[in-house]
Amino acid sequence: MQIFAVIMAGGFGTRFWPASRKTLPKQFLPIGGKRALIAETAARLKGLVDPEHTLVVTGRDHVALVRKFLRKVPPENVLAEPCGRNTAPCVAWAAAELERRGGTSVQIVLPSDHVIQPARDFRKLLRAACEEALETRALCTLGVRPSFPATGYGYIEAAEELGKRSGAAVRRVARFVEKPDRARAEEFLASGRFFWNAGIFVWRTDAILAAMELHARDIVTAVRGIRSAADAERIYPTLPSAPIDVAVMEKADNVRVLPIEFTWSDVGSWAALPEVVPADAQGNFASGGASVLAHDSTGCVVHGKAGEIVALVGVKDLVVVRAGKALLVMPRERAQDVKHVVTRLEREGPTFL
Amino acid sequence: MQIFAVIMAGGFGTRFWPASRKTLPKQFLPIGGKRALIAETAARLKGLVDPEHTLVVTGRDHVALVRKFLRKVPPENVLAEPCGRNTAPCVAWAAAELERRGGTSVQIVLPSDHVIQPARDFRKLLRAACEEALETRALCTLGVRPSFPATGYGYIEAAEELGKRSGAAVRRVARFVEKPDRARAEEFLASGRFFWNAGIFVWRTDAILAAMELHARDIVTAVRGIRSAADAERIYPTLPSAPIDVAVMEKADNVRVLPIEFTWSDVGSWAALPEVVPADAQGNFASGGASVLAHDSTGCVVHGKAGEIVALVGVKDLVVVRAGKALLVMPRERAQDVKHVVTRLEREGPTFL
Repeated sequence: MQIFAVIMAGGFGTRFWPASRKTLPKQFLPIGGKRALIAETAARLKGLVDPEHTLVVTGRDHVALVRKFLRKVPPENVLAEPCGRNTAPCVAWAAAELERRGGTSVQIVLPSDHVIQPARDFRKLLRAACEEALETRALCTLGVRPSFPATGYGYIEAAEELGKRSGAAVRRVARFVEKPDRARAEEFLASGRFFWNAGIFVWRTDAILAAMELHARDIVTAVRGIRSAADAERIYPTLPSAPIDVAVMEKADNVRVLPIEFTWSDVGSWAALPEVVPADAQGNFASGGASVLAHDSTGCVVHGKAGEIVALVGVKDLVVVRAGKALLVMPRERAQDVKHVVTRLEREGPTFL
Repeated sequence: MQIFAVIMAGGFGTRFWPASRKTLPKQFLPIGGKRALIAETAARLKGLVDPEHTLVVTGRDHVALVRKFLRKVPPENVLAEPCGRNTAPCVAWAAAELERRGGTSVQIVLPSDHVIQPARDFRKLLRAACEEALETRALCTLGVRPSFPATGYGYIEAAEELGKRSGAAVRRVARFVEKPDRARAEEFLASGRFFWNAGIFVWRTDAILAAMELHARDIVTAVRGIRSAADAERIYPTLPSAPIDVAVMEKADNVRVLPIEFTWSDVGSWAALPEVVPADAQGNFASGGASVLAHDSTGCVVHGKAGEIVALVGVKDLVVVRAGKALLVMPRERAQDVKHVVTRLEREGPTFL
């Protein structure tokens, strides 16, 4: 039995402007570290999955970046989406591709732009999930133990424990829940039964394809027809845009959850950097290699390149990001408002996007 | 009678870091405008003093910058100080140089790094001062009508009016006063008799040399010996460091003041930019050519190059300066604290100075 990784790298969000651009989305940035997030994602699997068994699904325009950051992944393992269709078509295409390659395989399907530490604990949990998936044909997902009543994540309600794999509790999934309001998030947190949905899945190729045949037959039938870039160009745009959670996971009856009990962050915005970067002596958070010189300043998130310096005097809890010819300054609590800047730039200054 | 300008460009302050560097002091920066302050200073005199009659006294290391920004000033008019000795030796050297060139001359002595608007009103006042200086041999100074009880400037106490020149009141100077504390500054403001000392002087060459012979004989004797760069190297370091105000003006008995009733700023720090830059529609102040994209942000001072963009989200009254590989963020009210950053960089990051 061979373990494959399917790295989903189709995102092109704007929340990390100005470091992220249309031509350089978040997964290709060294957010919180020295290497691009996608490179960290692949490196984190080292010893469990080798590059020859790693598939990457990405946007057509980002294939060159994937090749740049994952030099050891064979070119034929990079699947280029002609357009974004969310995760269900992406998962289906990767599964159909592995089906064509033959043999029994277990897949680890995961986003390219999360931070998870320590890698050793993550691999151990993935191994447990692989065992579970291989032996039971269940669709496994990893759930993050909530640390606060987050309203920005979907939740997974866990039911009874079915057993342990390498020390990790494997529980039946009762249901998937969309992002809750604050009151429900607090209930979820208090109950102890709910996990954040991290979008990380482990399953046998034959199991996910069987589930898709039941719940998303059109998609799986279509992607089985993709044998070339020309096929993808023709077929992919005809697929519905749907997340795998909604298209399959919520409907399937053999879903399991294993708990991530270590550091996980989807690093959703600049404000999330303190989740993944250690504070320096003054309590500021530097990312990307820039030096910070803080005088009477604390709680600031700074991103810039090595060889650059950001001097802070008498400021608190600011985000300061420098990238190319653009610079962004805002309070951490306003990090979601980057979208307003991006919207205005689309009208007034597209060269900065 | 020929009017000369003596532009004092020996400053090398740190208050405009990171835009200003040891190799690029404030007078060579386009602060608040598109051209370097020294270029604006020369341009402001256009029609009153031509480049052939402009002398510039600057640090040895900055001669090339002076030549770059004042291309029409003849090379022999740039006096290179081997070391800084404040304004008395600077003024004396320029006067001795003009004395050697012969003829009756009136000099306008002025700093290279102030902003004064409108230029037409400034020239009109300078003409009046030149008339006064030529005819009475008085040492004239321009005083700025105080708009608030500033503690950062020296003051000039004016005595009785002696007459008018082109509509400007010429008053005898009772005394020069060092920077006052807040209470005295308020008294000065209320009295109506006090002006800020702008460091701008108008006098006949023979008159200032005569005054220096009385009050600063060592300096004037020494600088008369400077005929070459080698002479300057040898003689200049032996001179005392003293401001012309203290060395001569406070002691002379024929001092006059004419009032600057228009916009004057010595642009003492980033926080002073709003004095010389118009606010944009959101109430922010951009300098140096950078574009500002403000979302829910006001009162910010931004300096950067043309082609750069600074996006502000939800911030107020910040200074944001980008220059080369360095960036500075601080509240406007903390602008004086740039010195702490510079001090630390001297120890930790001299490449950024």
